Amino acid sequence: MTTPVRICFFGDSLVNGTGDDDGLGWVGRLVSRERRGGRDVTAYNLGVRRDTSADIAARWREEARRRLPRDCDARLLFSFGANDCVEEAGRACVPLEETLAHAQEILREAAPLAPVLMVGPFLPDVARIDRLCPQLQRLCAEQRIPYIETRGFAAHCGVLLSEAAAGDGAHPNSGGYAALADFIGAAPQWRAWLDGALMSAKDAPADR
Amino acid sequence: MTTPVRICFFGDSLVNGTGDDDGLGWVGRLVSRERRGGRDVTAYNLGVRRDTSADIAARWREEARRRLPRDCDARLLFSFGANDCVEEAGRACVPLEETLAHAQEILREAAPLAPVLMVGPFLPDVARIDRLCPQLQRLCAEQRIPYIETRGFAAHCGVLLSEAAAGDGAHPNSGGYAALADFIGAAPQWRAWLDGALMSAKDAPADR
Repeated sequence: MTTPVRICFFGDSLVNGTGDDDGLGWVGRLVSRERRGGRDVTAYNLGVRRDTSADIAARWREEARRRLPRDCDARLLFSFGANDCVEEAGRACVPLEETLAHAQEILREAAPLAPVLMVGPFLPDVARIDRLCPQLQRLCAEQRIPYIETRGFAAHCGVLLSEAAAGDGAHPNSGGYAALADFIGAAPQWRAWLDGALMSAKDAPADR
Repeated sequence: MTTPVRICFFGDSLVNGTGDDDGLGWVGRLVSRERRGGRDVTAYNLGVRRDTSADIAARWREEARRRLPRDCDARLLFSFGANDCVEEAGRACVPLEETLAHAQEILREAAPLAPVLMVGPFLPDVARIDRLCPQLQRLCAEQRIPYIETRGFAAHCGVLLSEAAAGDGAHPNSGGYAALADFIGAAPQWRAWLDGALMSAKDAPADR
């Protein structure tokens, strides 16, 4: 076993794994895979349904502080932005400039605490997210935070799309979450971040 | 499908599922089973390693508030006390009277918000927990909060004990967590609480 690592996964319903009848989501699947591969990983899944960048900006510090003792080998993962792009249940969407301001603040404060990884949001057929993602990716590059782009993958992932359509329209089930886990886990940014290597966005392959 | 329900599981490493190579713990297994049985359950696993009753008393309100919108059908589960009974990593144990005071405060404030279930702690061969558990159970009975006793089950659960011994000494792996899920899920208190029935401790079978 390598050094034990504790990871806080901050995000929205996709991080929570909402809709997965296996109770794992992509987070649980990747954690299980790493543990079976010999990594002593403790996971804190802090994905919350409907959370926007504003919600996560308001809670991540305190929730991370309560879970990551000073002496542990910590990791922070963030994935948000999809709920910023939609208006639902009477909540207005978050303007793009505000999403970017929240992301900038979160990443700037998180980076000195632990290695940070950003997993880009996705949402089928919403033009706003197509404008947001490249700007999030640029922001991460500027701050030398690795970024995994999921939008292109998700847009063409048959099982993810069909499960979402068969479910509540937004969330996949076990097949879609397994596909997401495979995709994210195969990204070189995932491995480098988990291993604690300082991988700058410049070194990362484009648009993964 | 019945009404969608959102559950916050507050507790320590046993709630987190620490040590489970399947990434599920007993919480994930029960959630998956309920979903496959037709319940639309969203789970927030808020178990934190090393957390005592004092840690949970300090964080549960805020973390629940951020996850349970006013209009949702919510549930609250608590399971703590084991870390109160041990001294580890330089932290003094929490005196029994303080554990009970925290439990009383938590349960009194939680009960008006959503149906509450308490899952009793366990810890092999620690005399303090043998004193704590009956008092926790009595407190729950007074406040009409259902309580599932796990101490007797865990003390004789071979797979749980052998996995803990083979691991870090404290946490089981997938077999032990599966056994715990079976035990907790089979308790009538679990079903009544999930179904939202108001089941008083008086109606519950003794010492489950």
